[in-house]
Amino acid sequence: MKDFMQQAIAEAEKAAQRGEVPVGAVIVDSASNTVIAAAGNRVEERQDPLAHAEMLAIRAALEKQGGKYLESCDLYVTLEPCPLCAAAISLARLRRIYFGAYDPKSGGTEHGPRIFDHDTCHHKPDVYGGLEESRCAALMTDFFSQIR
Amino acid sequence: MKDFMQQAIAEAEKAAQRGEVPVGAVIVDSASNTVIAAAGNRVEERQDPLAHAEMLAIRAALEKQGGKYLESCDLYVTLEPCPLCAAAISLARLRRIYFGAYDPKSGGTEHGPRIFDHDTCHHKPDVYGGLEESRCAALMTDFFSQIR
Repeated sequence: MKDFMQQAIAEAEKAAQRGEVPVGAVIVDSASNTVIAAAGNRVEERQDPLAHAEMLAIRAALEKQGGKYLESCDLYVTLEPCPLCAAAISLARLRRIYFGAYDPKSGGTEHGPRIFDHDTCHHKPDVYGGLEESRCAALMTDFFSQIR
Repeated sequence: MKDFMQQAIAEAEKAAQRGEVPVGAVIVDSASNTVIAAAGNRVEERQDPLAHAEMLAIRAALEKQGGKYLESCDLYVTLEPCPLCAAAISLARLRRIYFGAYDPKSGGTEHGPRIFDHDTCHHKPDVYGGLEESRCAALMTDFFSQIR
């Protein structure tokens, strides 16, 4: 579990080197316990406000697996997913989310719209927050302290 | 305004003919008052749970315009956007949304997580619901009455 978050952190570090807000994500197929997709944030590079790490990883995993759902898959991401990514996680029916740092300003699972906490949310993954929290939070604070 | 919703309805009708849940969307550049992107739902065709009409239209509009935001653009969509699409609308900074039918089961702007109603939502478009509501609602009820 820690290894998978380590890979997500490595993706976030690569994103920072590209000048992106450092968020990284990996998707693990729980059946084989292997990483099937890994991505970092590419909003700036692609000039696409939807190119969040989780979105890119979900799309890559769907393409790899074939089919509309990722029911046997778990997502590891360095930051609490935003509402967009949380809604995508629900629609793609991921089994579990493990995230690193909490995001009071823009998070969508523990803050703001709390995407999974409504009757209209048709698939609710298990959510585990705070995995490698201090390292993941430091990624963000280091990045923003350098650019501001 | 009615013409643009009419084009969204036409996209929804084409989606129904493809066997998709009939949702259609167009994006209008308010400066030129012209449609710059139009799309219908393609979830089944692409086996992609994120291929909602609004998502496809937003991505097409971003590619057409260049740049990360659609600040001068309005979205016309036949159904209240779901949380995924509402969050995408906010991140892409669309100016206005006009939607047709309300969606108590899966909507994300007037129901469930009410994406725009939180301090953590950094861009809130103007939202106008119920445009051509009865026609848009009939698209959905007709479709589901045929397949069930």
